Amino acid sequence: MTAYREIRLKSRPVGLPTAANFELASVDVPAPGAGEVQVKNLWMTVDPYMRGRMNDVQSYTPPFALGKPLDGGAVGEVVASGDPSFKVGDLVQSGLGWREGFNAPAAGVQKLDTMGLPPQTFLGAAGMPGLTAYAGLLKIAALKDGDVVFVSGAAGAVGSMVAQIAKAKGHTVIGTAGGADKIAFLKSIGVDHAIDYKAETDLTAALAKAAPGGIDVYFDNVGGDHLVAALNAARPFARFALCGAISMYNATQLPPGPSNLVQMVGKQIRMEGFIVSSSWDMMPAFHRDLAQWVKEGKLTWKETVFEGIEKAPDAFLGLFSGGNLGKMLVKLS
Amino acid sequence: MTAYREIRLKSRPVGLPTAANFELASVDVPAPGAGEVQVKNLWMTVDPYMRGRMNDVQSYTPPFALGKPLDGGAVGEVVASGDPSFKVGDLVQSGLGWREGFNAPAAGVQKLDTMGLPPQTFLGAAGMPGLTAYAGLLKIAALKDGDVVFVSGAAGAVGSMVAQIAKAKGHTVIGTAGGADKIAFLKSIGVDHAIDYKAETDLTAALAKAAPGGIDVYFDNVGGDHLVAALNAARPFARFALCGAISMYNATQLPPGPSNLVQMVGKQIRMEGFIVSSSWDMMPAFHRDLAQWVKEGKLTWKETVFEGIEKAPDAFLGLFSGGNLGKMLVKLS
Repeated sequence: MTAYREIRLKSRPVGLPTAANFELASVDVPAPGAGEVQVKNLWMTVDPYMRGRMNDVQSYTPPFALGKPLDGGAVGEVVASGDPSFKVGDLVQSGLGWREGFNAPAAGVQKLDTMGLPPQTFLGAAGMPGLTAYAGLLKIAALKDGDVVFVSGAAGAVGSMVAQIAKAKGHTVIGTAGGADKIAFLKSIGVDHAIDYKAETDLTAALAKAAPGGIDVYFDNVGGDHLVAALNAARPFARFALCGAISMYNATQLPPGPSNLVQMVGKQIRMEGFIVSSSWDMMPAFHRDLAQWVKEGKLTWKETVFEGIEKAPDAFLGLFSGGNLGKMLVKLS
Repeated sequence: MTAYREIRLKSRPVGLPTAANFELASVDVPAPGAGEVQVKNLWMTVDPYMRGRMNDVQSYTPPFALGKPLDGGAVGEVVASGDPSFKVGDLVQSGLGWREGFNAPAAGVQKLDTMGLPPQTFLGAAGMPGLTAYAGLLKIAALKDGDVVFVSGAAGAVGSMVAQIAKAKGHTVIGTAGGADKIAFLKSIGVDHAIDYKAETDLTAALAKAAPGGIDVYFDNVGGDHLVAALNAARPFARFALCGAISMYNATQLPPGPSNLVQMVGKQIRMEGFIVSSSWDMMPAFHRDLAQWVKEGKLTWKETVFEGIEKAPDAFLGLFSGGNLGKMLVKLS
């Protein structure tokens, strides 16, 4: 038996979650059975989409269960194996985060080829957030030569990849983020016009100044005012990839939508929502491009790291107060 | 010299236009010069998009000029010709409506092959509104087998074509319109579920009842509540074609957008605005299909006709009070 700690959902948040919605528990895990592996997690991810799963509402993923451990992406190391295809020391990826360790059927974890990158990169730049940026830009927004790209939440895990992929492909990029540190980061990764939305009273005016000729692509991570400004700035045939609206995740009453949505008609704008799980097939192409961009020094990333499973709720809550620069991660061992 | 009457824009409307925004005038038109034709208009169209052109705002078409005749689609007959390619009696289409007659360069009018249909059909079912329906459904919404189709303003010039094209292609169609006469018309053209929006307090509930399994395609002619209901009813990967929001044309302050727009992410909805002029290339295919559907008795249309150029403003104003069943037209001679 090995004791592993885990974070359980104690109560469903209403509005902004608090520490009281979570509880730390310990479970004794026996040696893995035949066909099973035991994994000790090294890293776990916290992501905004998890907020939706805390509501008791069916969506594209089922809701988290009360009194049970949460789950989500994690990378770990095999510490005991009852399956011939895994040996002790193998690095694996799984959907069993929010816990220090676990037993799982061998088919429930994937061996991780790190491509020479730190393993936690596969929870961020090289993982789901990176693929979200890649698929959203290339497939959903159908990025094409000469497009001017606007991305909100540009200092976040997804947004910073959007900005850099667009830059690597030669585009003019306008990004928004909140606060001087994030703006400095955006400039350091080559964003052409970094807008501090917390310092602006009129996002439409700020965007018009940054992109006097208008924008062709908008990658939306936040919704709200940003979407209004993007519609105002859109050129004819602009494409908007809607990735998630962090401004909405904790809303108990949904705020009104953009009053200028009607501009979609005259400007012939296309707007498309997407979730990354519909684009897993693009992962090999993404990893090929990623390796090339990393080699050329065109891609970098930031991590905000909390240490210890007991800090996972704080890491998660930090997502909604803008507490992270780049990918928010929890280091588990 | 021949005296022709025309309607001019006297003042720019603020909000809902009134008769006072228009003035009737008469002009003396000389015999056509070399390379010109003189056309006596038989029919002219009034369409909701013209409201936008009454504002002094650059859009996808330039604004109407004050003190000048309005323009728009018309069919007429050549009454004098200074060009060898036209002879007296030829039927022609032009963009020079809102007037009884005019001289124009021969290149400014197109000969009309009526395909055995009444000529005014080419201002409605077989013209711009019909092509709008066809392109919106087939290209923008990418209609595919088995799709459940929802269309708002389904008794209008565009909406009734959307409903019938979808029915001709074997789809389940839900349509909204206001009032018993229009609902009866929707049933007569085979709409599976006709919703009288004026009699409903909760469009989302009405649509959920009509389409318990959800909708795949929404053809939006009205915006507002209808768009909210369509988002709520949308199935994953639904496609919305946004054709125009008649609820907005006269708004002096834009109402808030749909508060449930965020559903586009989880449901991976695509929403695309369009204007028909980007799809002129589909006209031959549309006319081939149209001829076939008419032959098979699958397509019919209604017209609401005002007589005389002096009634053109009333016809136009009637568009915004739901005064038309099918295409609103003005018969000029």
